Amino acid sequence: MPADPHTAVATVCLSGALEDKLAAAATAGFDGIEIFEPDLVASPMSPGEVRLRCADLGLSIDLYQPFRDLDSTDDDRLAANHRRAQHKFDVMRALGTDTVLVCSSVASDAVADPDRLAGQLADLADRAAERGLRLAYEALAWGRHVDTWEASWDVVRRADHPALGLCLDSFHVLSRTSEIDGIAAIPGEKIFFLQLADAPVLSMDVLQWSRHHRLFPGQGGFDLPRFLAAVLDAGYAGPLSLEVFNDVFRQADPVRTAVDGHRSLLALAEATAAGGTGTDPVGGPAPAVEGTAFVEIATGGEDPALDHALTALGFARTGHHLTKPVDRWEQGRARVLVNRAEGPAAAISALAVESADPPAAARRAARLGAPCLARAHGPAEADLPAVTAPDGTALFFCRPGVDSDWSGDFRTTRSAAAGLGVTAVDHVGLAQPFDHFDEATLFYRAVLGLQPGTAGEFAAPFGLVRSRALADPARRVRLALTVSLLRRGEWAPGIPEPQYIALAVDDVVAAARAARAAGAPLLGIPDNYYEDLAARVDLPSDRLAAYRELGVLHDQGPGGAYLQVCTEVLAGRIFVALVQRVGDDDGYGWTDTPVRMSAHRRQRLARRALTPG
Amino acid sequence: MPADPHTAVATVCLSGALEDKLAAAATAGFDGIEIFEPDLVASPMSPGEVRLRCADLGLSIDLYQPFRDLDSTDDDRLAANHRRAQHKFDVMRALGTDTVLVCSSVASDAVADPDRLAGQLADLADRAAERGLRLAYEALAWGRHVDTWEASWDVVRRADHPALGLCLDSFHVLSRTSEIDGIAAIPGEKIFFLQLADAPVLSMDVLQWSRHHRLFPGQGGFDLPRFLAAVLDAGYAGPLSLEVFNDVFRQADPVRTAVDGHRSLLALAEATAAGGTGTDPVGGPAPAVEGTAFVEIATGGEDPALDHALTALGFARTGHHLTKPVDRWEQGRARVLVNRAEGPAAAISALAVESADPPAAARRAARLGAPCLARAHGPAEADLPAVTAPDGTALFFCRPGVDSDWSGDFRTTRSAAAGLGVTAVDHVGLAQPFDHFDEATLFYRAVLGLQPGTAGEFAAPFGLVRSRALADPARRVRLALTVSLLRRGEWAPGIPEPQYIALAVDDVVAAARAARAAGAPLLGIPDNYYEDLAARVDLPSDRLAAYRELGVLHDQGPGGAYLQVCTEVLAGRIFVALVQRVGDDDGYGWTDTPVRMSAHRRQRLARRALTPG
Repeated sequence: MPADPHTAVATVCLSGALEDKLAAAATAGFDGIEIFEPDLVASPMSPGEVRLRCADLGLSIDLYQPFRDLDSTDDDRLAANHRRAQHKFDVMRALGTDTVLVCSSVASDAVADPDRLAGQLADLADRAAERGLRLAYEALAWGRHVDTWEASWDVVRRADHPALGLCLDSFHVLSRTSEIDGIAAIPGEKIFFLQLADAPVLSMDVLQWSRHHRLFPGQGGFDLPRFLAAVLDAGYAGPLSLEVFNDVFRQADPVRTAVDGHRSLLALAEATAAGGTGTDPVGGPAPAVEGTAFVEIATGGEDPALDHALTALGFARTGHHLTKPVDRWEQGRARVLVNRAEGPAAAISALAVESADPPAAARRAARLGAPCLARAHGPAEADLPAVTAPDGTALFFCRPGVDSDWSGDFRTTRSAAAGLGVTAVDHVGLAQPFDHFDEATLFYRAVLGLQPGTAGEFAAPFGLVRSRALADPARRVRLALTVSLLRRGEWAPGIPEPQYIALAVDDVVAAARAARAAGAPLLGIPDNYYEDLAARVDLPSDRLAAYRELGVLHDQGPGGAYLQVCTEVLAGRIFVALVQRVGDDDGYGWTDTPVRMSAHRRQRLARRALTPG
Repeated sequence: MPADPHTAVATVCLSGALEDKLAAAATAGFDGIEIFEPDLVASPMSPGEVRLRCADLGLSIDLYQPFRDLDSTDDDRLAANHRRAQHKFDVMRALGTDTVLVCSSVASDAVADPDRLAGQLADLADRAAERGLRLAYEALAWGRHVDTWEASWDVVRRADHPALGLCLDSFHVLSRTSEIDGIAAIPGEKIFFLQLADAPVLSMDVLQWSRHHRLFPGQGGFDLPRFLAAVLDAGYAGPLSLEVFNDVFRQADPVRTAVDGHRSLLALAEATAAGGTGTDPVGGPAPAVEGTAFVEIATGGEDPALDHALTALGFARTGHHLTKPVDRWEQGRARVLVNRAEGPAAAISALAVESADPPAAARRAARLGAPCLARAHGPAEADLPAVTAPDGTALFFCRPGVDSDWSGDFRTTRSAAAGLGVTAVDHVGLAQPFDHFDEATLFYRAVLGLQPGTAGEFAAPFGLVRSRALADPARRVRLALTVSLLRRGEWAPGIPEPQYIALAVDDVVAAARAARAAGAPLLGIPDNYYEDLAARVDLPSDRLAAYRELGVLHDQGPGGAYLQVCTEVLAGRIFVALVQRVGDDDGYGWTDTPVRMSAHRRQRLARRALTPG
């Protein structure tokens, strides 16, 4: 039986006014919050009203923060700071919270001598204790004299005051050091508070890094399970609280951000428990994924051009859904459903993974806050467990094999043909909506147990694109996520970007030649690309000629090459790629993506020019 | 008579496909372009077709770029690099360009020994010279061995080859050093090419800084006039070419970006000429601004609430326009025009500055690519020179004084009253549309001769906001620009942000009290703000009580304080602030902006709740 940690979130993580933030935290399932002072200052709710609102929402107020620049070498300044603290203690009493975060000072009058600093902190701890309050002292990574967890612990130890303890913030610690084993030796009762944040590994000014680029645990590059294990080993039993300053989260829907953050804490606790420390609130690791059961395309209506393209690509229409306007197409182990229901074309509307334990996978997804997908189904039809991914894609969990639970919903009209050599779905490419890229990565990582690869970035014709692939260790399920970094404003052609299905073939030239002969609408690639390829890679001339003839893109990687041929954009927002991996290639052809995007853009413009009116 | 430099822009600066970029460069008035290789590779136009297209557009192809990682300690690799270069030389011949940019190598096999490196470059220069081509060698700031302009010049000097010269890029130079006086001693004929880019002063990995954050000259923090002067002093007479990698420009309308970039080169040449080097293509410094002649609000129709508010704020309606539905309101030297023409409410639709020489100011603006504003006016009415700013605000140039050219268009109905102590317009606050913030800063700087202050950033309730103020040295005209950094997506309340007119008063408490007594809709500020203010600033209790009563915001700066009282949002998208500057205050109250924004958001929500339907 999983045990739930006490989860909390700092109001600064979320967008909106204080009331928006409190409601979002409660909706997402947090147990408590940290009140970030500027959120309170801008609020018309009095501290007492905030206390009541939180109680109504079932939220404890776990921390008031931050109190900055307390210590001073200037006596007048120190007196003014004490006066300021007294005001804040009154606010805390009215809020009904007992712990205040005190940051190490960044001011020019900060105290350098650790004993003098400890004395000043102990003095304030005396005042706090008189009111039943306590101070959690935190080393800012850019503090003037105290900027490491060791230095903050040294000061707290010297002060030796029961109302003075530590606040440990994973960003401040891990942005400076990986020496964290010593944390486990701190007496647990002296760790008053724990703030958790991830971040991408960047080489930049640490203050800017902290204020703009923090991420929820599991979205960045820090080893947070190791950090949390050290803190739990010390005996810390307080809240696991998120403090994430992120430019995107600051302006995104706060409920959505809160759900994402809550998921990150559960996944972190699970990962830490998997390492042997703490308890797992999710309930066991993700069941293994064993392949892609099917990919569904929603066409929004009849789409003869898509049917023609699938046929030309070697697919056979092998069945019809018993009750819905859905066709099943097959080739090798690749299965594509075409959903012709009237409505908006959604490109890839559903992805089904073959799971070693579909019900367990679905329960796990629900524990991780994945929205359950209710689908109408007939009495004899399979009730496949399904959730909705952040980009709106439906995610089904199926038993492995073509005779799986879902296949019974289809009346088989013929068997799959040999086709042109497609063996399976290599991966799907899901262009993500704005601002949900990190959320999507965490979602697929936590819910499916996929491992994210290195985040990439490339200059596309109409702006920068971020990319990140996820795959299971055996490479049976792969996802390629992309997002436009800044696309907005009036000059934004080609939105939304198409999504795609990449199909594995053993010989891309042969497959593409057969597809073209059958009339598949293959995407034309400019001659300039092949001139450049010839300059970069020493290819046999007949091979280069075949590439040029068929539009093969050749991404030369360190251990092999990723070869692909793409179709034109079909069904409004989708294309199909035939993919051959040469050698140890584990890539996704990102290098060629700008060329591919330009070609698709031209194709769409040409089509628009041909469309009357 | 100003002399025009040969201006060029790298295609990488602009968004779109190659044909979009070429068209944009020509439209903006550039004389030439640099072809960025990936733009050509993705293009269906052959090099010969690109050559013809450029000729049709009146653009010279000044540079092909980049050629990377030429030199090598590995003979096979070097041979492959030479082979690659031969391919590119063929491309250049077809393009009809004679200069290729060769970057210092970042590869692990880069040559460290300067003589060996010079020998390899000379070898390639031999091959280039055989075809009438030449190499411009550039030190990347993150080159493996060659990463300063001095090191690149040392290698070029050692090679001593007529077809090998330098490319100087202001970013690569100024991101590493301010020691640039020695550039003037380089023989001018050895500087083959000059690339210009500005950048904000950031502390981060120089490659990331370069690839994402470059700006056009005058938009960042580099001393580009000094840099350009050194290069011109060396005798360089080639193109002034922009190479700017910027996340925003990469996805913005390329014509707009190109116009912005072209303006930046003209303004840079002018500033350099003002320092004594080169020629001024703009034609003399900006005539002095002597004050704000008027601010126009477009209400889109009758707006009794605005009329009532202006009256309560002490304004008198002193006249009506002879032919248009425009009223003139006055108080002290503050003049507000209310334009009731039917149409979309545009908040601040026009700003008129008092100029020492309006016709000269307008000519100068036109030289800088400011779109001329054609306004219908009657035969007896003033034909005020006007241009359109990047945010759509009309910008008029008027003679100083209330009896100026423009005032004759109004029938005076009464004289201005004493009002409640407003003396003048302190500044206007212009919330900028997405992606045009840096463009706007450069526009107002170049066209009006205002000096930008330090760029700021603050956490507003619904996302980060960037801010930048501009003012003339005598502080007679001030502008406060803001922009939401990332606001997009569905969760985006409060867009567009209101704009405002800040009115100078000598006693904000007295003025606010009088305004409130007259029924002005002053904005309510939460008690929490005053609790926090009391904790931060030791104010007399009666003063604090008055602030609380009237909603005064108090931003304590180092040399004084900025006190303001704001109205609610009026006319859909505008508010008025009464501003008292205490001591040497030169600020804009940014610290209080999040509180003000939250209060306006509440006011707008409450108004919506009260509106039936």
